[in-house]
Amino acid sequence: MAATETFSEKLLYEGKAKQIFKTASQGEILIRYKDSATAFNGEKKEIIAGKGRLNMAFTKHFFTLLENNGIKTHTVKYTDELSMIAKKVEIILLETIVRNYAAGSICKRLGYEKGVKFEEPVFEIFYKNDDLGDPLITQEEAVSKGLASAAEINIIKNQALAINEILSKYADSKSVTLVDFKLEFGRLPDGEIILADEISPDTCRFWKKGTTDSLDKDVFREAKGSLIESYTKLAGILGVEL
Amino acid sequence: MAATETFSEKLLYEGKAKQIFKTASQGEILIRYKDSATAFNGEKKEIIAGKGRLNMAFTKHFFTLLENNGIKTHTVKYTDELSMIAKKVEIILLETIVRNYAAGSICKRLGYEKGVKFEEPVFEIFYKNDDLGDPLITQEEAVSKGLASAAEINIIKNQALAINEILSKYADSKSVTLVDFKLEFGRLPDGEIILADEISPDTCRFWKKGTTDSLDKDVFREAKGSLIESYTKLAGILGVEL
Repeated sequence: MAATETFSEKLLYEGKAKQIFKTASQGEILIRYKDSATAFNGEKKEIIAGKGRLNMAFTKHFFTLLENNGIKTHTVKYTDELSMIAKKVEIILLETIVRNYAAGSICKRLGYEKGVKFEEPVFEIFYKNDDLGDPLITQEEAVSKGLASAAEINIIKNQALAINEILSKYADSKSVTLVDFKLEFGRLPDGEIILADEISPDTCRFWKKGTTDSLDKDVFREAKGSLIESYTKLAGILGVEL
Repeated sequence: MAATETFSEKLLYEGKAKQIFKTASQGEILIRYKDSATAFNGEKKEIIAGKGRLNMAFTKHFFTLLENNGIKTHTVKYTDELSMIAKKVEIILLETIVRNYAAGSICKRLGYEKGVKFEEPVFEIFYKNDDLGDPLITQEEAVSKGLASAAEINIIKNQALAINEILSKYADSKSVTLVDFKLEFGRLPDGEIILADEISPDTCRFWKKGTTDSLDKDVFREAKGSLIESYTKLAGILGVEL
């Protein structure tokens, strides 16, 4: 790579909430969190100063918690308050959802009342495809579409449920309910599946314990108050260093 | 049951395509096929004289074929050209779909082009609930909702794939492609799961082999011609006695 390569030449990918840049190392990328908020598959959009820094802080906090509990993540190191270096993975085009309580799309699709507790955590995968609106996909269909093998989906499911145990227990210890969350996984060059992307109030639903009061992106989705205030408050409750 | 019980007193249930009546036997019901056609969850409706008789004939033909190949169905006996006596089962509220080629909802949801052949048959379950529009449901969600146990869903899946083998081979021998089909299963009082409902061009997609020319309800859905003519022609091709 030429030393004169420009900033834009280094940009590999720009998503809704993050930019991905090349680094000097072939096997690593730099992830930079953006100050944008989107919802409803990008139909609602806003620039919110300070949001990138908050989500970076949450991700660092939760990924460190998970690493300390034996879950591998793509993290190499946290470089500054907006950026981290991560292992370059091939992102698996499945959004993995774990649900402990009914909220959001499952209420509309299956007729659950918001707040119903599931006896067992519910595991779902959605096909990561903006043009199709990220549709629900069955495990057999994901295999049939070549998105992942049955063995990989099994690993993802086991990882997701293990992550749920760790995060739920942690949130509960802070009087917060982990309602549901989204994960993304990636494939290392040797085929190993590891946790990638982020874990933040953008990708999790958190409620004040014993209530359905949102401390997460539903504040933005439902225009219920200041996202920054809400995320900052949640960081305080959960012990996330800002 | 009083001998004076009226016709309407004997009606247990009226669906879109069939009526269910009590019989003199506690463990049996009478199913009567109606001359109505509906599509898009009932948004498109028509009375079509002769349709009930045709679907009854197809169901009799396919259920007999399946019984001869070791698949248990709810059939007790075929009484006349519109009616059959069946074992009374508790219908499991899952519509089971097997797909060999892409057509219908899966094209829209997952972006498949119509006519793509799946390497392995795709198995899907939908929650049988008109108010929710019969949504796709994952196997874990169906268990969580109490619609069926994991063991029951496994039985349903194995039965559905075995039925697909038998029907696909039969259709192919008549130069017809079995594209996809819907099944419903029921629980006998002792818990055994058996095939119920119907198998007809209302519940299957059939194409002329080597083409995507419909010989099934898509003729009605897409207003492509006479449903009765099309079903009658298909009966001739498949050797269904009318």
